[in-house]
Amino acid sequence: MTNEVILMSHGLMAKEILNSAQMILGDQINYPVVSMTPDDGIEGTFNKLDKIIGTLNDAKRIVILADLMGGTPANTAMMLASEDSRIQVITGVNLGMVLESFFAIKEENLVEHLLKIGTESIKIPKLQIAEEEEE
Amino acid sequence: MTNEVILMSHGLMAKEILNSAQMILGDQINYPVVSMTPDDGIEGTFNKLDKIIGTLNDAKRIVILADLMGGTPANTAMMLASEDSRIQVITGVNLGMVLESFFAIKEENLVEHLLKIGTESIKIPKLQIAEEEEE
Repeated sequence: MTNEVILMSHGLMAKEILNSAQMILGDQINYPVVSMTPDDGIEGTFNKLDKIIGTLNDAKRIVILADLMGGTPANTAMMLASEDSRIQVITGVNLGMVLESFFAIKEENLVEHLLKIGTESIKIPKLQIAEEEEE
Repeated sequence: MTNEVILMSHGLMAKEILNSAQMILGDQINYPVVSMTPDDGIEGTFNKLDKIIGTLNDAKRIVILADLMGGTPANTAMMLASEDSRIQVITGVNLGMVLESFFAIKEENLVEHLLKIGTESIKIPKLQIAEEEEE
């Protein structure tokens, strides 16, 4: 099973979340990115994604991480998913999901796994109050 | 209650997630951003954030949306939170959280609210298979 990952967003967010992941993991993590410009609209975004999909003939599954449920990037990903059963979409991408996608790239259920990792990585960290002294 | 929001990330992700939000909501949404460079380390990141905090004397609460639990941006935010009780931190930022922060900016429990919105915005959208015809 070969999974491929594509990142999609309004503007350059997808490109820069990949860059953030590369600051942590190095250039070994590298995915195609769709950066929707204000002028792209649905058609331009669709064409950008379709062009990338066309290069992924060997992929058994294509997991698209999109920025926002109901946004044009996610919607165009869903349009292509309805035509190509290899494509799965997940919205609400954050850095934890992108990092985990690298380590879990061979997972059969990658999209469900990233749903879990993504939601778990949204946290309100607890302050380590210096009360350890009590014991 | 006046809440202020700050976005923090490795690299330019925070800047570009704000830009994505502006593509949707317009320039009315605008927050200070800390973009950690590879050279910043803990000290440089701390100084960037501290400088911004210094401009927010009127804020009753400062909510920092950081990219990754355990990353330097989140860790330096926690260091400052331990010194300044106005600061609250949430990790795993995604676009849905940034958009919602704009509408919910006056919420007393903004950080808890964003935790809920952020996790809910991570979704695997269902394909609308054309079976509506059945009735």
